[in-house]
Amino acid sequence: MIRAGVFGASGYIGGELLRLLLGHPEVDIVSAVSGRLAGRRVDTVHPNLRGCTDLLFCAPADLADCDVVFLAVSPATAMELVPELDGRAPVLIDLSGGFRLRDPEVFARYYGEHSSPGLLDSFVTGWPERHRKELAEADRISMPGCMANAATLALYPLAAEGLIRPDVTIDGRVGSSGSGATADAMNLHAERSGAMRVFKPQRHRHEAEVAQSTGLTVRMSATGVEAVRGVQVLIRVQAAEGVSLGERELRKVYRNHYGDEPFVRIVVQKRGLYRLPEPKILSGSNFCDIGFSTDEEDGSAVLVAALDNLVKGGSGNAVQTMNIRFGMPETLGLGFTGLHPV
Amino acid sequence: MIRAGVFGASGYIGGELLRLLLGHPEVDIVSAVSGRLAGRRVDTVHPNLRGCTDLLFCAPADLADCDVVFLAVSPATAMELVPELDGRAPVLIDLSGGFRLRDPEVFARYYGEHSSPGLLDSFVTGWPERHRKELAEADRISMPGCMANAATLALYPLAAEGLIRPDVTIDGRVGSSGSGATADAMNLHAERSGAMRVFKPQRHRHEAEVAQSTGLTVRMSATGVEAVRGVQVLIRVQAAEGVSLGERELRKVYRNHYGDEPFVRIVVQKRGLYRLPEPKILSGSNFCDIGFSTDEEDGSAVLVAALDNLVKGGSGNAVQTMNIRFGMPETLGLGFTGLHPV
Amino acid sequence: MIRAGVFGASGYIGGELLRLLLGHPEVDIVSAVSGRLAGRRVDTVHPNLRGCTDLLFCAPADLADCDVVFLAVSPATAMELVPELDGRAPVLIDLSGGFRLRDPEVFARYYGEHSSPGLLDSFVTGWPERHRKELAEADRISMPGCMANAATLALYPLAAEGLIRPDVTIDGRVGSSGSGATADAMNLHAERSGAMRVFKPQRHRHEAEVAQSTGLTVRMSATGVEAVRGVQVLIRVQAAEGVSLGERELRKVYRNHYGDEPFVRIVVQKRGLYRLPEPKILSGSNFCDIGFSTDEEDGSAVLVAALDNLVKGGSGNAVQTMNIRFGMPETLGLGFTGLHPV
Amino acid sequence: MIRAGVFGASGYIGGELLRLLLGHPEVDIVSAVSGRLAGRRVDTVHPNLRGCTDLLFCAPADLADCDVVFLAVSPATAMELVPELDGRAPVLIDLSGGFRLRDPEVFARYYGEHSSPGLLDSFVTGWPERHRKELAEADRISMPGCMANAATLALYPLAAEGLIRPDVTIDGRVGSSGSGATADAMNLHAERSGAMRVFKPQRHRHEAEVAQSTGLTVRMSATGVEAVRGVQVLIRVQAAEGVSLGERELRKVYRNHYGDEPFVRIVVQKRGLYRLPEPKILSGSNFCDIGFSTDEEDGSAVLVAALDNLVKGGSGNAVQTMNIRFGMPETLGLGFTGLHPV
Repeated sequence: MIRAGVFGASGYIGGELLRLLLGHPEVDIVSAVSGRLAGRRVDTVHPNLRGCTDLLFCAPADLADCDVVFLAVSPATAMELVPELDGRAPVLIDLSGGFRLRDPEVFARYYGEHSSPGLLDSFVTGWPERHRKELAEADRISMPGCMANAATLALYPLAAEGLIRPDVTIDGRVGSSGSGATADAMNLHAERSGAMRVFKPQRHRHEAEVAQSTGLTVRMSATGVEAVRGVQVLIRVQAAEGVSLGERELRKVYRNHYGDEPFVRIVVQKRGLYRLPEPKILSGSNFCDIGFSTDEEDGSAVLVAALDNLVKGGSGNAVQTMNIRFGMPETLGLGFTGLHPV
Repeated sequence: MIRAGVFGASGYIGGELLRLLLGHPEVDIVSAVSGRLAGRRVDTVHPNLRGCTDLLFCAPADLADCDVVFLAVSPATAMELVPELDGRAPVLIDLSGGFRLRDPEVFARYYGEHSSPGLLDSFVTGWPERHRKELAEADRISMPGCMANAATLALYPLAAEGLIRPDVTIDGRVGSSGSGATADAMNLHAERSGAMRVFKPQRHRHEAEVAQSTGLTVRMSATGVEAVRGVQVLIRVQAAEGVSLGERELRKVYRNHYGDEPFVRIVVQKRGLYRLPEPKILSGSNFCDIGFSTDEEDGSAVLVAALDNLVKGGSGNAVQTMNIRFGMPETLGLGFTGLHPV
Repeated sequence: MIRAGVFGASGYIGGELLRLLLGHPEVDIVSAVSGRLAGRRVDTVHPNLRGCTDLLFCAPADLADCDVVFLAVSPATAMELVPELDGRAPVLIDLSGGFRLRDPEVFARYYGEHSSPGLLDSFVTGWPERHRKELAEADRISMPGCMANAATLALYPLAAEGLIRPDVTIDGRVGSSGSGATADAMNLHAERSGAMRVFKPQRHRHEAEVAQSTGLTVRMSATGVEAVRGVQVLIRVQAAEGVSLGERELRKVYRNHYGDEPFVRIVVQKRGLYRLPEPKILSGSNFCDIGFSTDEEDGSAVLVAALDNLVKGGSGNAVQTMNIRFGMPETLGLGFTGLHPV
Repeated sequence: MIRAGVFGASGYIGGELLRLLLGHPEVDIVSAVSGRLAGRRVDTVHPNLRGCTDLLFCAPADLADCDVVFLAVSPATAMELVPELDGRAPVLIDLSGGFRLRDPEVFARYYGEHSSPGLLDSFVTGWPERHRKELAEADRISMPGCMANAATLALYPLAAEGLIRPDVTIDGRVGSSGSGATADAMNLHAERSGAMRVFKPQRHRHEAEVAQSTGLTVRMSATGVEAVRGVQVLIRVQAAEGVSLGERELRKVYRNHYGDEPFVRIVVQKRGLYRLPEPKILSGSNFCDIGFSTDEEDGSAVLVAALDNLVKGGSGNAVQTMNIRFGMPETLGLGFTGLHPV
């Protein structure tokens, strides 16, 4: 059994890690770290786990010996923890934004100065569909942001094959769990209910990750919407010169890239309410759905990608990555399909 | 023009007071008090008021001379303020729970010890449909709680005429604005969204008010549901011995009591989605809708009442009361009908 | 492998059956019956199943040989199908309301005349916690209604031990999936969003089931609320004469009855948002959560029970029952714990 | 008093017309036309109007003499009605999409062949901020689509002054009332709840209106989100060559264009949850809020506009237009400010 520790276990990403790892046949959770709640049962905070575990939160200092440690904390806390944990966990999987960018200057532009810029290069991005081989041996792994992951999965095949012009725009929409479990005015139900809140009209942090992963120039806005879970990105691309970007071509390139991927589905249907990716049916699942619409007249296309921000946009993607790192079947513990309706 | 001051102007009840008073043709808001936000524009907190006012929040010490002061604060703050404001405002309308109960022992049971029990008796309950005459001369007025108001309006006519047995049960449901504008875990969107949260299965405070107003023995539970605004109470009553509590009888008693009331509507239809009172179509309006279902076989009946917790359950009811107190037409400033759909 | 057929496979209950059975290690779905959609892929209607199955809907006439047939249809259709299927399926599990009541007169009162009253007695109620032994040999099984199941699980232990007076009232609340996948005005998003719709203030059909299962006199109202999934019942009971109904007593009786049950959890906590049963964290799971509040002063208690109306209130309960019937571990295929937040 | 008739009075746009006209001091509704519901009270369908009117729906043939007739019907029905109504109503205000485009070829591309292409040119667009003078004398008026109105109001000043490049992209988001009151699968609560449904990824009809009104090349996608009411458009523009598109410049151009407009507000704040336009606080109001974000480094800007799709995106805009046409104060009957929270 793999011994796993989770920092930030009382948060939403942390709670999803607990849920997935408790259901994973090859993992024991040895430490669910929460400084604030040390000693309390985890199911008092994550009531879905009642009856599934007697685990208690522990203080950071009480972290047990682990094979893998997950960090589900803020970027600032991750920057503190990574050096401290050196030598204490053979494998570190960071879900914060603290180590997602490789270039310290780009990092500084989006997050402010990094406290350990020299460490940025020691991380491999937790992007199974692209870095499977590197991840199998990586000891420090940084998971992509939720919107970044959706957008990168949709864009990378087109960018890699030179099919689109280098400038793209992304409109991201995200549910309320994306801003975490800490109470503040932003998260008040009465304010968020039914909202379409453009909280970041330009320069959302995740655009830097997408640019890093695809080599494209990316402009990303972000809007908070009513859902609790779920991310959707609507991406506008333009065919590169001389390229035809019809439905057939797009289907082919995605099939080539993702035909064997267990968690990427291409969703383009002629009719129905779900003919393009819709996050609501992905709640709890590790799928990223990708769809598109093309306009052959002017060479434009709209790509749509969706995922559960806490699963394929966070904890599920991290578990998939852990499976790769420890040589287990990649889908282990990630079999839930999502619900309809929900 | 009547000069009005509002304490707690940054809260949800306070914001509704500002909205209603700004639209009231005979009122000037001279002070919107908020210790925390003194100096900021009120429309930065209540964005619906943009373009309607340049009012700034002021500190409590800067309260201007007023004809009427509204307290939209916590019970504890109201208990402090009432003695302090003595002599500074000819008319005081308290929307907190601090002065709703006349009996200090009952108050203590539901709220804890009162700091000025001797003042409880100096207040008249802001219940226009019953105390119109007293309110026309009252200088201290205490507005009922949102669920209490709905339940009392539904029960009083039956209790007053001796038509029901003295024991009743009330299941109250309330939207998220009912717990105010302060961020805490209880109000997190991700936790409240889609919830049916039985936050008070027994002994909700409002039952004491209903008991006081109707003379009945009342058991009230309270559940928080997904809506932002709105209260609905479902009340189970039983016909008194020898009484027939059929549809005809109930219609008649309600018509007698409320036939001339501008803000109480009897809603009992044979078909349609809105055949019983539904709070969602009352958002922003000052109506209390009352409906019922009877079972002549066993003499039981279910009463249903609904209102907007911030309007007829709070600020609108207070404005109606102010209209009475200052001899104005009772409906002034309260003409909004509600929206469909919403 | 057990060969299963599902009638009504395009509905919400039918879709959940497909989801659960596709994930069940010992079942093959051989027929997903939908007259209207025969020939179409099931994942065009249930998009959560994309990538999990290539199953097509088939016409009723094309039902393959089955070991078990599930009926997820209307009561009227079930009444037609049951006699027709005689001899074609060794085990029949009916999820409609058509065969839930044993007494034809009671049935007639709540549903209208039954077309095959003589068959009512041939069904065993799909209530694993009580009828495990009978279900292991039953060939015709009728699953309880969603609110009925929650209420019965909460009430039965108290009724069986004579702890409560025989009259109880139940306020049921149910999400929008409870009225099915057929579009009509009742289900319009703009009308249902944020609603508290008392669609049945008295005499909801499920009260007859609860009365049948518990021997109590039951009055049930039903309110449609905003959630998509989920049922919650709030039940008022009164201690029987000479009985103390304190927290300790209730815990003990529930522990005695449900201590070994895999899918019934007792939820009574001193603090937190989930101190009483909340359906939202049960979405997709087969748990029924039961909690309570007691008032030792007057001997009253409020019971609260919650479940996912499509799972423990429908398809999951049916799969649990099938597991019993075919001698499999009772929890097989029902391991999903629910999500937090959701 | 102006005598008004409304076709399509049972729909959502029609219901809002009734609400606004009933509250309008200079208008009598003489006919609320609904073929399907003739003879029924309008408040059985629009329950918010209970107590405000005894109006009944009438059949189309029973249309009374009117000064103005509003068409709140489908494009196909409007195309039939317009010729039929010739001579029967001095002023016709069409809210359908049937007469919004002036060029029959463009119309055909987005809607299919027009049945009376010769009439297209006889309509003036109901765009008060731009066509006030023409509208004061117009006898046939066609109201813009909801997303088109928001986008045009945001774009027109920049386009008119040559500040932006001619290619723009628009991501429109719209609440569920936008698809009307007719029940179909698209509108099922269980499917729409929490959805982010990209129902038109490219070539939404409203892009043709925006192109017509601004002279720009427009690409518009449309996503259905959870809200009942509300439209928001997020528009990407690029500064024209040699133009600086900073915050100061944008504020200035909007102030010049809209400084005196009663229903256009510029909303750009440094902090708060409502620093950019948010439709939820506009429910019921006739405001269009416009905001923006600029990136002086690359000359890009994001414009955000929001309105209530049934009011400033439909019925309220039509009433404002009627006020202009009949020489009344433009804001008459349109004073509601919106609610917070809601």
